[in-house]
Amino acid sequence: MKIEDLISTDLEIIKNRHGDVYHGMKETDPGFTRFGEAYFSSIKHNSVKAWKKHLEMTMNFIVPLGKIGVVIFDDRHNSKTNGVFNSYILSPDNYIRLTIPPRLWVGFKGLSNTDSFLLNLADITHNPNEVVNKDINEIEFNWSELR
Amino acid sequence: MKIEDLISTDLEIIKNRHGDVYHGMKETDPGFTRFGEAYFSSIKHNSVKAWKKHLEMTMNFIVPLGKIGVVIFDDRHNSKTNGVFNSYILSPDNYIRLTIPPRLWVGFKGLSNTDSFLLNLADITHNPNEVVNKDINEIEFNWSELR
Repeated sequence: MKIEDLISTDLEIIKNRHGDVYHGMKETDPGFTRFGEAYFSSIKHNSVKAWKKHLEMTMNFIVPLGKIGVVIFDDRHNSKTNGVFNSYILSPDNYIRLTIPPRLWVGFKGLSNTDSFLLNLADITHNPNEVVNKDINEIEFNWSELR
Repeated sequence: MKIEDLISTDLEIIKNRHGDVYHGMKETDPGFTRFGEAYFSSIKHNSVKAWKKHLEMTMNFIVPLGKIGVVIFDDRHNSKTNGVFNSYILSPDNYIRLTIPPRLWVGFKGLSNTDSFLLNLADITHNPNEVVNKDINEIEFNWSELR
């Protein structure tokens, strides 16, 4: 079951003999509200960055290079999908934008042999006061199933 | 001489054992006015994409992967730097954001053996009516000097 409020949007890759063009996000796209910050998070093969929850930030994940498994866990009390995990594979071969609203737990794993790159287009700038972290073992998930 | 209105801003890379984090742009940063669209342009080794001029769009170029030579040519009649070329090497080793105002000619070349990736954070969405193109040979520049 898809976690409530998560948005997955197909993106286009425009072929070009000098190098392809990868769509990211337009101000008119679903999931866009405002621009706060853009940054990249790279992830090594088989490394995991988990778990993080934003209390205010909506994130938009785009992976133009490599392959990343993104896992979302919903423990929001008022959610119809409380207790549900969703996982998505993001890569140029499955080129989607994942819009992640606040108050969901997020983790991700590098699945390609080379470093993978994730662009996050966030609606607010980085602020440690609205971020909650948990150790990878504090939320049980079988990361080896992501490959 | 630096072309009038071009902005080059040093960016930070935050080391992380699972994969580094690369700053891009915050809404409070120099050069940011508004968000229109984010997209990636990849460029192959020794390929050149040139020339293009936007009449309205301000672009912000960021290269988190590979190495790209960006060339800017100013033929604005009212500019103090009319006739000037500037070139910049953008890569994780020279990690800067290049803010390019409208009405300047722009071209770029892939300088790393593998594909390079350029993120453009633009203040308006793509609109072919505000783009002017010229053939690579219509503006004379020695592309082989970029390496």
